[in-house]
Amino acid sequence: QYSTGVRRVTLIPGHGIGPEITVAVQKIFEAAKVPIEWDEVDVTAVRGPDGKFGIPQKAIDSVNENKIGLKGPLMTPIGKGYRSLNLALRKEFDLYANVRPCKSLDGIKTLYDNVDVVTIRENTEGEYSGIEHEIVDGVVQSIKLITEEASTRVAEFAFQFARDNKRKKVTAVHKANIMRMSDGLFLRCCRDLATKYPDIKFEERYLDTVCLNMVQDPSKFDVLVMPNLYGDIMSDMCSGLVGGLGLTPSGNIGKNGALFESVHGTAPAIAGHDKANPTALLLSSVMMLRYLKMEDFANRIEGACFKVLSEGRVLTEDLGGKSKCSEFQSEILLQQVHGT
Amino acid sequence: QYSTGVRRVTLIPGHGIGPEITVAVQKIFEAAKVPIEWDEVDVTAVRGPDGKFGIPQKAIDSVNENKIGLKGPLMTPIGKGYRSLNLALRKEFDLYANVRPCKSLDGIKTLYDNVDVVTIRENTEGEYSGIEHEIVDGVVQSIKLITEEASTRVAEFAFQFARDNKRKKVTAVHKANIMRMSDGLFLRCCRDLATKYPDIKFEERYLDTVCLNMVQDPSKFDVLVMPNLYGDIMSDMCSGLVGGLGLTPSGNIGKNGALFESVHGTAPAIAGHDKANPTALLLSSVMMLRYLKMEDFANRIEGACFKVLSEGRVLTEDLGGKSKCSEFQSEILLQQVHGT
Ligand SMILES: CC(C)[C@H](C(=O)O)[C@@H](O)C(=O)O
Ligand SMILES: CC(C)[C@H](C(=O)O)[C@@H](O)C(=O)O
Repeated sequence: QYSTGVRRVTLIPGHGIGPEITVAVQKIFEAAKVPIEWDEVDVTAVRGPDGKFGIPQKAIDSVNENKIGLKGPLMTPIGKGYRSLNLALRKEFDLYANVRPCKSLDGIKTLYDNVDVVTIRENTEGEYSGIEHEIVDGVVQSIKLITEEASTRVAEFAFQFARDNKRKKVTAVHKANIMRMSDGLFLRCCRDLATKYPDIKFEERYLDTVCLNMVQDPSKFDVLVMPNLYGDIMSDMCSGLVGGLGLTPSGNIGKNGALFESVHGTAPAIAGHDKANPTALLLSSVMMLRYLKMEDFANRIEGACFKVLSEGRVLTEDLGGKSKCSEFQSEILLQQVHGT
Repeated sequence: QYSTGVRRVTLIPGHGIGPEITVAVQKIFEAAKVPIEWDEVDVTAVRGPDGKFGIPQKAIDSVNENKIGLKGPLMTPIGKGYRSLNLALRKEFDLYANVRPCKSLDGIKTLYDNVDVVTIRENTEGEYSGIEHEIVDGVVQSIKLITEEASTRVAEFAFQFARDNKRKKVTAVHKANIMRMSDGLFLRCCRDLATKYPDIKFEERYLDTVCLNMVQDPSKFDVLVMPNLYGDIMSDMCSGLVGGLGLTPSGNIGKNGALFESVHGTAPAIAGHDKANPTALLLSSVMMLRYLKMEDFANRIEGACFKVLSEGRVLTEDLGGKSKCSEFQSEILLQQVHGT
């Protein structure tokens, strides 16, 4: 159907600064001659026949067909009846593992210079079950749902990820001292998997202890696996250690597909002004290339991006520079051509 | 019943290093002539008539009578049927607000030097409800319980604390974008209270965003108020920013009583060797003195402790020093006498 070797990828530019940073990625891919054909779709929520808002069918069809997507930030309208589109996408395609690597970057000065951790977050259940009730007036319960199936597959993903990426250790993060049954189940699944990966060191740690140790010495950690909400906060925290959401990539992986996305916001204040930093989306696209086994392209683009960041001559405003998004992109493009 | 002006306080030395650091606090109080009489009790779990393990009646009676306690670390035996004694105490006396100040200390080198935040944690419900079910094999749910009553009282506590301590801002930390009903209720209670404290700035932030911002710039925050689990992790994380649990105090406040405690572990490896750092328990006892309106004693003891830490001559091993717990204590004692 497509020219040999060309991979079709669903592209969701998103809202706010989404389109600008998406164009930057597209140009860099084009210059690198990555054999990818973009299938661009809009996911702005539409009202369905049932009156509820949801993802447009065209977008769903595209992801179902291509099985892989790259996505910019989405705006979630505020108000009753809207659920986060980000969450809807994760759910729709059962993208059960959220992978967020955070590594200290040359040229990006933070308080830390030794961060190299990967958060693997269960992405489909837990505190994100969406099940809530008002028992009586003023008394509400939210249900955290933990299943053996989802816990096992994300634990397996974490160990396999560690092995594939030559990492040494997986830490299961939990509060099984408090949520004995739910986090206890999650933990048991991790322990079971650990026995199948004797080459990977395994440890279990309380969430609060990991937070404390992480800010004191991130080098204590390697790959971390945990329930949904814990992953949400841990990945943001780790991102903060290396410079923030504008610099860190994210991938949502399922059995039959994957969606890579920048997890920063839509930044409406600077949208349309060619000021946004495309790094998070670019590094997410690099993760995507690795997922597609296009290792050489991934290395070349990542290397060029790291080089430009480390040189510090052409940086966007969020990094203390004065350059435009398009200038930053051009610099990466040049680096790709002239770099080693 | 007691000599005029002498306050009776329940003292729970606890396990592991608990007794040593408790003795250090007692000696410092004695030298400072604090008008306090200790009522020492043991809370090691005992099996009740129903076969379950719980806090000994004598300890419960003591706290009920004195309405105030100071407590070292407790060991929770591992195994079915044991619940954390720490939690049991908070629950038994309905200590609904957990207050954990974290402030950068002179002489304690960390990556941060501008931390001055206070976490106010809802201490009785939320993810700590203890309600869990196995629906079917391999499917577990844990219930997060949020009530208007508990949310309102902790929110009120936070605003009143801010006012009493001349602080400027209260940040409500939540995930109401995900747990719309439960965290939504918590948030609404905070908003309601905010209108009654127009002198205190109020802001609402997502938990993940706060984690990210906190590690990048803690000076953005002042007083933080949040549901139980979020407070558990946020307080540990903030403690990590200023040197760890060995240095930060904690108070559990209820309507009819209060329990001040060091939240570090029992450190069995060094227990009995006169090596433990009594700072966290001592600063907790200082919080207690302020609660008892013994401001002068509080200032004198706190000042002496800060001075010794900042001079750095007499430090315990955890702080990179070589001094014994008892030497550190003597130094504070001397400082009290000779200090200004
Ligand atoms: C936007 C929000 C619903 C989302 C989450 O809570 O998962 C975000 O914080 C993330 O980490 O992707
Ligand atoms: C010991 C444990 C049950 C407790 C908690 O989770 O609250 C501890 O981490 C704390 O913060 O006091």
